[in-house]
This record gives sequence, C-alpha cells and structure tokens, in this order.
Amino acid sequence: MPGNSFGSSFRVTTFGESHGGALGVVIDGLPPGLSLDLAAMQAELDRRRPGQSSLTTQRKEGDRFEILSGFFEGKSTGTPLTLLFRNEDADPRAYESTKQLYRPSHADYTYDAKYGFRDWRGGGRASARETVARVAAGAVARQLLAPMEIVAWVQRVGPLSAPEGLDPSREVVDQSPVRCPHPESAAAMEALIKEVRSEGDSIGGVVHGVIRNVPPGLGEPVFDKLEADLAKAMLSLPAAKGFESGSGYAGTLLRGSRHNDPFAATQQGIRCTRNHSGGIQGGISNGMPITFTVAFKPVATLFIEQDTVDREGNPAKIRPRGRHDPCVLPRAVPLVEAMAALVLADHFLRARAQGTGPFLP
Amino acid sequence: MPGNSFGSSFRVTTFGESHGGALGVVIDGLPPGLSLDLAAMQAELDRRRPGQSSLTTQRKEGDRFEILSGFFEGKSTGTPLTLLFRNEDADPRAYESTKQLYRPSHADYTYDAKYGFRDWRGGGRASARETVARVAAGAVARQLLAPMEIVAWVQRVGPLSAPEGLDPSREVVDQSPVRCPHPESAAAMEALIKEVRSEGDSIGGVVHGVIRNVPPGLGEPVFDKLEADLAKAMLSLPAAKGFESGSGYAGTLLRGSRHNDPFAATQQGIRCTRNHSGGIQGGISNGMPITFTVAFKPVATLFIEQDTVDREGNPAKIRPRGRHDPCVLPRAVPLVEAMAALVLADHFLRARAQGTGPFLP
Amino acid sequence: MPGNSFGSSFRVTTFGESHGGALGVVIDGLPPGLSLDLAAMQAELDRRRPGQSSLTTQRKEGDRFEILSGFFEGKSTGTPLTLLFRNEDADPRAYESTKQLYRPSHADYTYDAKYGFRDWRGGGRASARETVARVAAGAVARQLLAPMEIVAWVQRVGPLSAPEGLDPSREVVDQSPVRCPHPESAAAMEALIKEVRSEGDSIGGVVHGVIRNVPPGLGEPVFDKLEADLAKAMLSLPAAKGFESGSGYAGTLLRGSRHNDPFAATQQGIRCTRNHSGGIQGGISNGMPITFTVAFKPVATLFIEQDTVDREGNPAKIRPRGRHDPCVLPRAVPLVEAMAALVLADHFLRARAQGTGPFLP
Amino acid sequence: MPGNSFGSSFRVTTFGESHGGALGVVIDGLPPGLSLDLAAMQAELDRRRPGQSSLTTQRKEGDRFEILSGFFEGKSTGTPLTLLFRNEDADPRAYESTKQLYRPSHADYTYDAKYGFRDWRGGGRASARETVARVAAGAVARQLLAPMEIVAWVQRVGPLSAPEGLDPSREVVDQSPVRCPHPESAAAMEALIKEVRSEGDSIGGVVHGVIRNVPPGLGEPVFDKLEADLAKAMLSLPAAKGFESGSGYAGTLLRGSRHNDPFAATQQGIRCTRNHSGGIQGGISNGMPITFTVAFKPVATLFIEQDTVDREGNPAKIRPRGRHDPCVLPRAVPLVEAMAALVLADHFLRARAQGTGPFLP
Repeated sequence: MPGNSFGSSFRVTTFGESHGGALGVVIDGLPPGLSLDLAAMQAELDRRRPGQSSLTTQRKEGDRFEILSGFFEGKSTGTPLTLLFRNEDADPRAYESTKQLYRPSHADYTYDAKYGFRDWRGGGRASARETVARVAAGAVARQLLAPMEIVAWVQRVGPLSAPEGLDPSREVVDQSPVRCPHPESAAAMEALIKEVRSEGDSIGGVVHGVIRNVPPGLGEPVFDKLEADLAKAMLSLPAAKGFESGSGYAGTLLRGSRHNDPFAATQQGIRCTRNHSGGIQGGISNGMPITFTVAFKPVATLFIEQDTVDREGNPAKIRPRGRHDPCVLPRAVPLVEAMAALVLADHFLRARAQGTGPFLP
Repeated sequence: MPGNSFGSSFRVTTFGESHGGALGVVIDGLPPGLSLDLAAMQAELDRRRPGQSSLTTQRKEGDRFEILSGFFEGKSTGTPLTLLFRNEDADPRAYESTKQLYRPSHADYTYDAKYGFRDWRGGGRASARETVARVAAGAVARQLLAPMEIVAWVQRVGPLSAPEGLDPSREVVDQSPVRCPHPESAAAMEALIKEVRSEGDSIGGVVHGVIRNVPPGLGEPVFDKLEADLAKAMLSLPAAKGFESGSGYAGTLLRGSRHNDPFAATQQGIRCTRNHSGGIQGGISNGMPITFTVAFKPVATLFIEQDTVDREGNPAKIRPRGRHDPCVLPRAVPLVEAMAALVLADHFLRARAQGTGPFLP
Repeated sequence: MPGNSFGSSFRVTTFGESHGGALGVVIDGLPPGLSLDLAAMQAELDRRRPGQSSLTTQRKEGDRFEILSGFFEGKSTGTPLTLLFRNEDADPRAYESTKQLYRPSHADYTYDAKYGFRDWRGGGRASARETVARVAAGAVARQLLAPMEIVAWVQRVGPLSAPEGLDPSREVVDQSPVRCPHPESAAAMEALIKEVRSEGDSIGGVVHGVIRNVPPGLGEPVFDKLEADLAKAMLSLPAAKGFESGSGYAGTLLRGSRHNDPFAATQQGIRCTRNHSGGIQGGISNGMPITFTVAFKPVATLFIEQDTVDREGNPAKIRPRGRHDPCVLPRAVPLVEAMAALVLADHFLRARAQGTGPFLP
Repeated sequence: MPGNSFGSSFRVTTFGESHGGALGVVIDGLPPGLSLDLAAMQAELDRRRPGQSSLTTQRKEGDRFEILSGFFEGKSTGTPLTLLFRNEDADPRAYESTKQLYRPSHADYTYDAKYGFRDWRGGGRASARETVARVAAGAVARQLLAPMEIVAWVQRVGPLSAPEGLDPSREVVDQSPVRCPHPESAAAMEALIKEVRSEGDSIGGVVHGVIRNVPPGLGEPVFDKLEADLAKAMLSLPAAKGFESGSGYAGTLLRGSRHNDPFAATQQGIRCTRNHSGGIQGGISNGMPITFTVAFKPVATLFIEQDTVDREGNPAKIRPRGRHDPCVLPRAVPLVEAMAALVLADHFLRARAQGTGPFLP
C-alpha cells in the first residue's frame, strides 16, 4: 500500500503540500454519534500553529479547518470525516532561487531520486506543514479516547535537560512557550533557542510523553505491538531520529533484577510497583502509564551558507531563505501527542473488533 | 487488521506458540522464479538457534524448516511460500508450577488481560521462539535484496561498549559468540554475560545495524517513512525498548551546522560527505548506508526469587524455571537483520509498484 | 479496515455527502510524472453529470473539480492526488418533509440501523452522487492504463435488449443519450424510459463492458482474482444487483466441450479461438478481451405514493420529492468504466510490484 | 497487497498446492475463548471432500486437519489459528504427459504468463483443492456467527432447474448427493450429471444461498458493501462466473413500483414485506434474509480430445487424465457457504470495531 495512510480500524489519510492549494485529512472508521468539540480541535491546532511565539517560524497560517464531510447536526456520522486547511500564507518565491540546489539534510535530493522531480515549493509533501492534518486527526482521536490522557513535553533542548521524573499536566506544559514544564529549565532552553537562532543555526532535543488511564489489554502480539506502532508513529514525524519505550536505552544498563517490574494488587486491579516497562508488556498495555521519549534532530534549515550540489551534481553554496523554526521541539509536542492518539484510537477499535482487553465479554 | 502480519507488498504472516505443535510463516508477494538458497536460509536460522554457544539457552531445537508450499523445481512459484518449524524440545512441565503466577516484566498478565486466558506454556505466542519464523522470512527477503547487505552486531552489553565507528562484515561479527566484532570488547562482554548468568540475573545492551548498497529512492513520504517502518520492525522484537536512526539521541546535542550532511558528487552519483542522516532523508533512502541502533532490555526471566501476584491478585514469590538466555543480545543480531530485510524487501516491491526510485522509467 | 477505500497499490479513498459541503477523492500510489489530461478527466465527468440529457435528473451540478494536491507543473507528483467537488445545487429542503420516513428500497433504514442516525439530506453518503469521485479517479486510472481500452454500454433496459455480440467504440456508445450503441434499440429504450418517467415509475437494465488490450498475467490467484475484484467493484455501485464474467449465467447451460476456449498461436502470442472465459482464467488475464455484465435494479425513488413506516415504526405513506433519474443505466455506463479502470490500475501496479505478467524479467 | 488473504478484521490467509506438501490456512483476528466444535468443522470438510459420492472425483483425501497454533485447552487463544491439511493422495504422474500443453479454459496458460513457469501438478495453486482451507476457515467463522444461519443449495444443473422459492434447511439439502433440496429435481440432476460424465463431458449450473438471522447494520457504505464483498467472495471460487444479490438480473425487468420493498413494523422490528433487496440496502443488512445466487461454469477438465497448443505455441491435441468432477455444483455448496461465512464474520467484527449496527451503544 502507498504511504499516506495510518491505522487499520481508525484510519487517517493525509494529503497536501506546503505551498499547494490545501492540506487535509480523511478519517475513516470514526464511530458515529460522537459530539465533536470543534473548539478543542482548534485549540490543539493552535498549539502547532506557526507564529505562536517568538521561538517559531513567522509564517502566518490561521490553520482553521473546514469540515467537508462526515459531520451532521453536531455529530460524527460514521462516514469519512474530512478536514481541510487552505494554505493562506503560501509564498513559494523564497524557494525560486534555490530550486535547483539540494538543501543539506532536507528531502530535496531523495524526493528527486524517488519521484524524478519534485514540488520544490517549501519542501512540498515533505514539509512539516503536513502535520497540521495529523494534529487535527489526533484531536478527533483524543475525544474518542477520553478519559485516557496524553501529555507530552520538552524534556531536553540540546544539552539542557529538565529534571527526570516529571509527570506534568498539559496546562503546566503550556505555561512556557518552549513547552517544558520545569520553569528554570524552560527559561534556559528559551534563551538557548534564541541564541541559536541569532546565529542562524538550529538545535535538537528530546520530547517525553505519557499516556494515562490506559486500560489493560490494548495492543497486538508480534508485529503490531503497542510500542512498535508508537515507534513507527513517532519516527514518521519530521526530524524524529529516535524512540524509547519505558526504560529505553538507559534500561539496558540495568540487570534484570533491578529492571523487572514486580506485580502487586491495587484498588485498580493488578498493577506494577515500578514502571520500567513503560506500561507495555509483550506489546500490550498493562494498565500502568505508557511512557516514551522521542529524539528530534536540529532543524535542517539554517541561515548559514553551506556546501551542496545542484541537480546535475555541480558544487554550489546554499543559504536558504524561507521561514523556519530554529528548534522544532516546542511545536513537536502537539505532534507527538497527536500521533500517540492515532495509535491508541486504532488499537482501541481493534481490541473492540476482536472482543479483547476492555471489551472482553 | 490483526497483528500477525507485516509488510504490504512483501507480506509475512507468522503463527505458532513456543510449546504448541509448530511455528511457521507464510510469505505472500514473493516474486516468482527466485532460486532460493536453502542452505543460506538454514545458516541464518542457525545463528538464531538456541544452544549454539554457552551463552544461550540450552533448549535443543534443530530449527530445521519444511517448505509446505510455494516452491517448485528449486524456485519460488510466486504463490505463498510457507515454512514450518516443528517444536522438538517443547517441555511445558517447567511452567506447570508457575502457571497461576504472573512472571514480572513478562507478557503473562497482559495476555490474560487481553485474551481472558493464555497459553501458559513458555510464553505461548509471546515467546521469543516466534522469531524463528521471522528469521526464516528475513533470509528469503535477503536473497531478493542482493546486492544490498545487512549487517548487525552487538555494540554494547550492559555498560561495556565497543568503540564507535565499527563497520564490520558479517564474518567478523560471527567470530565471537557474543557477536561483537571488536575482540577485546567481545571478550569482556562474554565474561560479563557469564558472570550475570552465574548470579541467575540478566543484562541488556544495544545492537547496531547497517544496510549497505541501498539504492536512493526507497521509502514512502509521511507515515511509511523508511525509518518509521524500521522503528516499528525493531520495536516489534521481544525485549526491544529503543530505536535510533542515524545520529539518534546523540545527534540532538549538535547544532544544525554540525549535524547537516553536505552533498557532493561522487562516482556513484550524488552522495553525502557525512552520514548523520543515517542514509534516510524525508523517510527515503539517499544512497548512503542506512544506520540504526536498537536497545534491548535485560531478559525478564531470572533464576532469582521475585515478588509477584497470582491471577487472583494474592501476593506470591516466583522463581521461574525453564531455559533462557541471560542476555538476548547475541541472538538478537540475526533478528535485527531479519526485520531490516523484511522492511527493505517490502519497500523495494512498493517502489517497483509505483515506478519510483530505482524503478523510475 | 473501514469501507471508503478501494485498491491496495493504486488506492482511492472517497468522501462526502450528497448535500454536504463537498465530495472528493484521494488517490494514493499514483506513479509520478504522469502528464494528466485534465480535459479528458472533465469529459469523463461530463458523461456522469446530472442534467446531461432529458433522461436524467435535472439537478444542476457542473461537477468541475479542483486539484488540491499531488499535481505540479502539469504532472502527478507521486504523492496523494486529491480532487474536490463542491456541491453547487444542494437543496436539502425537498427532503425535510420525509426525513422521518423510510423510503422503500433506499438506505434510509439501514443507515439508521448501522449508525444510529443519518444525514437525511438526499441519501447523504449513500447517494449516487458519491460516484462523481469514483469517475474522477477512474479517469486518472485510465490514463495510467493506456493503451488498454475500457468500453461499457447499455445492453438492456427493462425487457428491451440490444442484439448480442456488440463490440462498440466509446464514440458510438455516446451517440445516443441512452448509451446503447445499437440505434434502433437505443430509440426504443429512450421511449421506454420516457414512458416510465411519465408514470412516476422507474426501470432497470443491464450494462455490458469490455476491456481491450489487456496484457496476459494481470490478476491474483485465489481471493483477488481479476473477476472477483471486478465483481466487487461493480456490486459496490449504487443499484447494482448482479455481475457476470465472460459467459456468465448463460454459460452454465453449456457442456464443457462447447464452453471451453481452445488455444491457438496468433501474431500477438497464444490466444483463445473463442472467449467464454471472458479474458480471465484462474483469475488472471489471458490476453483476450475482458468481458462482463452488470445488472442494475430499477431506481428506488418513485414519484408514486408507497407504503412505509416512520422511524418509530408507525405506518405511513410516502411520495418522495427531489430530483432523480427514472433509469440509472445511461449514467451507469461511466461508473462501470471507472470501476473497471480502478481494478485494472490496481492489478497493474500489483503485478509490477511482484515482477509478474507484463513485468516478468 | 498480494492476493492470498481475505478479510480485514477476520483475516484468513491460505497456502498450498494441489500436489505439494500440504495446504492450510491461518486465521488472524479470531476472538479468544471460542470453544471450537472440531467435529462440526470436520463435518463441513466432509461435505467438500472428494469421493463422497459417485458424482465426484475419486481422489482419496481424508481432509483431516491438524491444528498447528492458536488453540489451547479447547478454546481459541486469540492468536493465529492455523489448520493444516496434508495431501494424502497426491499423484502428479497423471500430469507428466501433458505438462507442456495448455489445458483449455484452465489456468495453465495464465499462470505461465503471470509467473514465467508453474507448478504443473494438478493445477498447483490454481486447483480447487485450495478450497479445503476456505471451508475449514468458514467452519470456524460459522461458529462465531451463530445464530446466523447460512444455507446454500443447487438450484440448477445445466437446464434443469428446481422450483423457485425454496427455503430449505441444511439437513434437507444434504439428503441428495447433488445437494438440491427438491427431490424430483435432484433425481433429474443426478441423472444428467451421470450422463454427462459417461460422455467425458461436464456441465455447469447455479447455486442459491440464504443467510438468516442477520442483524440489521452489517456492511459498509461505498466500496465494502455487503453485497460487494459477497460478490468478490463468490467470484473468487474456482469456476464461478456470476453473482446476483436479491432480485438480480430478473429484477431488472421490473418497474420500481413492483420492485421496491415496502417497510412494515413487525415483532422483530422494522422489516420489509417482500425481499427483492435480498436483505441488503445501501450495502448494509436490513434484517431480512440475505439472498444471492452464484453461477458455476462447466468444469474445464474433459475426458474428450481437445485442440490446444504447447508452451511454444505448436498445435497439439490434449486429452487430460487425472481425477475430476463432471459437475462442480454439489461440492460448490459448502464452498459458497464458507465464503459467505468469511464475509459475514469480517463485517461482524468490523461493525464491532466501529460500534455500529448490533453494537451501537
């Protein structure tokens, strides 16, 4: 199958380019009768929106959606819900001068190699602008999943790390423009991002995520383990380069006797007394919070001259123009949450299909 | 869709339990007329086989496959190729005494939560024994992908790390039972694993992988990025807890000006002068080696008494019996390679379907 | 998976309701670099358009499409091609008075039974207006398939049948508004449809189809036989009630010695000397023309009073208003062709993925 | 995707060739905890078994299955259920002499055209023997669907038709070896089949099917309409050439005023007072019996000399050997039922995933 759809029972298909006519998403499999909270959806989109703070690109997009189908009398109809976003501030002129050049660590070369030519206007389909459609779909999925709660935050920017063990609410996360819930760290991160931007450079970092109130029994054995689908979801985000579930890389340093999570009876049922497993065992949720991290590389667009070649392979210098974020992390937070919501919604419906987990007879 | 299949154009479906009648795999979409090298397939399986060295479980399985279908006169027919593995040394008695108890950090509790009951004989479907079917399928995929070359090795066991920058052949990897291509590191790792085993404990680590000779243009935009599918593939392996593509977590510490990979013309075509991208840009291969890492947690089975509960939630002590590896890393190497082969084979056929990348007209 | 997508390698997803904001289609998997003939696409849409002759509904829709994505500098980009149709003459007022009643042989009751409520405006998602999106996608598929040639025509309206053995061009088909290539039959059919309409009644009939220049080797064994996918495609059309491949029901009356198609060598290669198989053997194309028929029931909307019930089950009389065709057949012709094109395009790309049929090395 | 799987939530994958090692099926998505009635499964298989009466091929196959996985302590585990059939009476020698010739109206030529070569032993993957795996899977699906009731029967053999309006039980159907529930018709059909066989010839016919006790609300809008999936399922059977839903081709002769099915309130809820729709409206079940027909062509294997060509195109005479049915109809009955069960099981689980139809909250 082609690569622009995600999920099997809750299935989203996105379309659109950065500077084309529009972007959008078709959501198929959404249960009928869901009273969609459109304001909550817009609020999610506003968290991703460019220009929301001085840390982000100044491209001006309202990112307001039009519902094209699947919504009637305030409720989902059960047929495809389609959301459309017109590009308002598309301005491909900035890309005219460099359209023959391959921007380093961008998808220019690989799109040419794959498709023979490419929409050179701002990355085309490869642009992070595509994620507006994912955030919209994630906001719908979130409403299906309540009372599950998905929270992500910026844990690290470059070398600046917030303390371990944070477990914040979304409100606290949103109190800083950098979306780090630890105020001192947030302030330092903000300063670093501004410094990097002033140099025309960029910086990466790490997002942490937690999903609370997940019932035991979601996820599939073998290939579609919950953590496998989360890994795919996160690595499908622009600039993502790593994923950890639960204890992740740090856990590999421990002996099993320190790493294993003992079981105990609690009021909610059988739970673990620690959570190195990150809420998933054998690919299936165990009722503990699902925890994970995602690594994002420094943004590839720099306002510094770099070596490259043109389409014929001739050496060239490039100094991109356009409007970009010096650090993707603050705006990555809603993307990570959206992808987590898509994974959970799909597994929720799949568990219901088979009559498993929370749907056991 | 249910979770026991992987890939869309090169599609594998595995079945079977650790101590049931048999395990197997159906491969659908395999091109016809492929002269399968059965000895090479068995050699791959032997790399995964239990009992191959003193570092691994002493369960005795020949892991010899029977071809049930799809193979005629020495060639693949283009119809489903089915490979069957009989369990020879199944011995569920070891699990009788603990079948009411939840082994910490195993899938016992989550399988019960998902399915209402479970095959308690050695993990049933959740057993790593399922991976014999994946290795067999991967060995077939590898023959389709030649001259692409997939090599994985043990880079770290617990705190013991081999030097960075290794780029070994498979032959060198296999020279040590621990499958680390750096002899001094391998010796230290081997000693550590033996020490851990003597304590009844277990230890984790990190596998590195490289895929060479990948043509530019494989991978899909948006959801089925090559690194997204690799991430899913790797996180679907038992005990896997993390995945990095290219520079991974370490790359998040760099500024973009240090992280970006400049382009240059070479005899093979346009390539990068470094490889922080790990051979993938915008989800699509760029002709550089694809590089990645996978984190594996310490094995959950310990021969040490641990706290747990039984199915009714009563506190209990458990001290598992059975036969297990104290460290999954040496045997994880062929699993990682197999999953990488399945991802590449699928994207190879998908690129051909659409007429992209190496199949551009 | 949900039911609004079709095809696996050439994959279309449609969305939209009869009187909602818009209808559309996302085509994923389309090869890049295809110079789309937009005028040819519009010409196909005009063949399906309401109001094109006195035989069809007088709803006024230009059915002009906007390309939202996947098209750049006159060519397909290889990323999702999205086509949008705004509803221009939506007028749900005609349905207000009957929205509590179940129109006989419509999908009103079943949509309520499935979804708990429904978009009652003109059938909502169940409206034949959805097929505008399929015709657009089919017109794209057709360009991919050239020089394959897909022609359908009206063979029978009620009891009025054209002679057997027609093998017309599309130009001849379009010479009558009823789309029957046999002028005398066409005239009689046209008169019958007008008579039926004057009575407020409706009438069914049969469409024949042929696909020429199909290379041998398309189609899959077992479940995705070419005729199985054609059958599904055709039965997914509104009002379709039957499908025949090749000799169909009539062939069941013959003995095998009369029914079998002998092989002979020709300049094009090995072909059959007759074509009871309808161009497909074992589910795979054999190089002969693919032939099939589709039965369409009389349109359910009548302007005659009928017995029914309301949502609470109370007996009621209904006399629908709205704008409808008295006979779906003339406009079914482009629908049948479109669905045939979608099936062929998908199997064409699937054969290429596996390297079979015309893509054998 | 390749073509050897069927269904999306209840997903079966079959494998195997007529004279290879074994045939089998993997069922993925089966709910856990189902107490499978193995004797009932075997009884279904016995209905399909060769050699069951003097009307069928004398190949001797016990068609006894081995459960390889997914079954523990008498119940389905929720993981893949795999059933294996060893070929016991494989005897490819009969095919040696004709392996260079293309049997008319068989899949010999198309398999060569698709795959470049073929397993010539008795049709290989194209053999109707593959359906043993479908019948086994259908027997499992049937247990999931109770109290839905699926009954098929032979309505016509060649020109000999049973009276219209039959609505038999399975017990009555099985009272004649020809599986026609009308004794006089059955006797005549049996005589005709024997006559045809004595001439070395073959004959086709029509199977009717009914599915009772289907809850309203199963089926998907647009592409995966219930009748579309049934059409595909039936046309995927060997020798199937036509499908009708409800009134089918005959219904096209009626005016809408005679064809429409009026609604009325009944004790079971809102139902129709006639059933031209065949239990499906807008692709979704309406609570009435689902009715359909399937046309099967005369078997292609004749014991009469026929004209053909060899692989190089040289003219040749062929007079096949081997063991075959002169009329596929009696054994087609369990195949039709099995495919219907697979379609219904899939839509049942899909409705549950989305929370629709019988699963509306």
